[in-house]
Amino acid sequence: MKPRDDRPLVALTMGDVAGIGPEVIARAWGDSPLRALARPFVVGSRAVMERALACVGGGATVQEIKQPEDAEPSPRVIPCLEATELDVADVPHGHVDPRAGRAAYDFVITAIDLALQRRVDAVTTLPLNKEALRAGGIVHPGHTEILAERCGVSRHAMMLYIGPPAGAGSSGLGVVHVTLHVPLRRVFDLLTGEAIEAKIHLADQALRPLIGGRAPRVAVGALNPHAGEGGLFGDEEIRIIAPAVARAQAAGVDVTGPIASDTLFGRALSGEFDAVVAMYHDQGHIALKTIGFDRAVNITLGLPIVRTSVAHGTAYDIAWKGRAETSSLIESVRVAARIVSGRRQLGLPVGAS
Amino acid sequence: MKPRDDRPLVALTMGDVAGIGPEVIARAWGDSPLRALARPFVVGSRAVMERALACVGGGATVQEIKQPEDAEPSPRVIPCLEATELDVADVPHGHVDPRAGRAAYDFVITAIDLALQRRVDAVTTLPLNKEALRAGGIVHPGHTEILAERCGVSRHAMMLYIGPPAGAGSSGLGVVHVTLHVPLRRVFDLLTGEAIEAKIHLADQALRPLIGGRAPRVAVGALNPHAGEGGLFGDEEIRIIAPAVARAQAAGVDVTGPIASDTLFGRALSGEFDAVVAMYHDQGHIALKTIGFDRAVNITLGLPIVRTSVAHGTAYDIAWKGRAETSSLIESVRVAARIVSGRRQLGLPVGAS
Repeated sequence: MKPRDDRPLVALTMGDVAGIGPEVIARAWGDSPLRALARPFVVGSRAVMERALACVGGGATVQEIKQPEDAEPSPRVIPCLEATELDVADVPHGHVDPRAGRAAYDFVITAIDLALQRRVDAVTTLPLNKEALRAGGIVHPGHTEILAERCGVSRHAMMLYIGPPAGAGSSGLGVVHVTLHVPLRRVFDLLTGEAIEAKIHLADQALRPLIGGRAPRVAVGALNPHAGEGGLFGDEEIRIIAPAVARAQAAGVDVTGPIASDTLFGRALSGEFDAVVAMYHDQGHIALKTIGFDRAVNITLGLPIVRTSVAHGTAYDIAWKGRAETSSLIESVRVAARIVSGRRQLGLPVGAS
Repeated sequence: MKPRDDRPLVALTMGDVAGIGPEVIARAWGDSPLRALARPFVVGSRAVMERALACVGGGATVQEIKQPEDAEPSPRVIPCLEATELDVADVPHGHVDPRAGRAAYDFVITAIDLALQRRVDAVTTLPLNKEALRAGGIVHPGHTEILAERCGVSRHAMMLYIGPPAGAGSSGLGVVHVTLHVPLRRVFDLLTGEAIEAKIHLADQALRPLIGGRAPRVAVGALNPHAGEGGLFGDEEIRIIAPAVARAQAAGVDVTGPIASDTLFGRALSGEFDAVVAMYHDQGHIALKTIGFDRAVNITLGLPIVRTSVAHGTAYDIAWKGRAETSSLIESVRVAARIVSGRRQLGLPVGAS
């Protein structure tokens, strides 16, 4: 009998094969942290994975597996579950291709279903391309919508997370946005107390497994400069944000705010907060990208499965040149593994083990 | 005959004597960079300066001077021009006091007039307190308004500047805001092409003396996420910002934009740009405070005199406890001295020399 392997089984979906996904996996495989943290295997195309290994000059070989339970990753073996019926081996690099879009969708659906069946512990996704998805006949604009539909959830969110070495005390920093890809003008209509409260609770729940089960300290950003300065520079803090924070506090969340957004991130990075709820896209992203976005990981909140994602895109312009960075993938797997371990310790339901 | 001293003569206005201004000067005096960079003297109250020295335990003595030309600063001598008729020696520490407000105004007016008369090269101001100013019968809400009125200018702006060691290539990073202390809702009305264009030109002119006379590379921030993504997330980039940038380019400025504000600051800090024109308060301040605001300096643009200011406030809560940081003052004097030297090299009019 084999000794039990406690490392979480993580499905890496290959993403758009015309982009940097395959080579990022191939390069990261040479990096020991990836396999030390988790038991990873690829959900994608064996032929593409072999080309990606040739592209980066890695010494490993690809082993096709029929089911995730057969995955025995090692420095020399990349297990790969063939997850599309399309032939994508000859998809041109760096261009929108309908086959690449459709195959990327197939990879993700396969991995989601395995996670829902508790046959894998977590899913970490490499990037797909919106246009290729559409060209491939998929109506969903991106990963999040595919995940939400397949998992049957409507209340979900993305958390951008940067792990501890970035300087955030001992627990890293997670950022959840109340509004995201909308004109700044529309933020005022979308910023309701209910929306803010929901994101506070999602952040609180998401961080727990990552910080050893203690109550996360959540900070809520203000909308206006100087947090409105008592109503002088805007009243959304008084009318909307403060009451939402008060309700979340009454519900037991360790939450503070609204805090002027220019001082907020410095305080969070010095270890005062574990998570920030940002009111709009750039409020969170300016700080995260200034700190060092290459290490950022996306975590999808509100799903019945554990899913992390690299924070970068397909990067067609540099794809298949062997230059793509691997740090975001390694961090994504590290964070997925930490969430799985944390959930096990807290007795929360999780994947395959 | 004495050898000519090329160090710029810089008037340090003491600010609100109930705040941290006096002790910051006293502590910074012990720091050799301050005097290596410039020939500083204090515009304020001799009695308060003596108390501040006693507070921080400095070894220097205060020498009252009757005119700036008599200033001969040394490690042991702080020249001080008495600049108020009020007795402020016994103003309580850490509280709003009408005498402190009125005296702070007197100090600034004295320094401005000396700069306008070309008897000092630059003015560096320690903080004053808005409430104390009002209590002292001064109608202006702050330094900028006092400076603008006394100098007779209407088109002016503040630049927040962080010098080179902060990581911004070899020339530091300056940030100018198009809108500042207004509700975020009001930004949409105030963001005109003319306002943006004016700030581009002010940034361009202000940076030249600081970067050896070459043309500054100015970047203009977008308003909406992803710079509006071609109109999908807002159209201010297309309607307002891009045309303003084009007009400034046509006028000869090396200016780029609009650039998505989350990637902008990382690019600027890596040395790609010398200045950023930000659309609203938090867009600039989130990045600056995340980078390290303790080294930030305010530069007033559009004045006929050189004026820098510390970026912190009176900090009544820690005033007169000898704990206030001096880095912002030292940077403010360093930057004032660099502007003066740069303007001399470019043959632009400047102060006393």
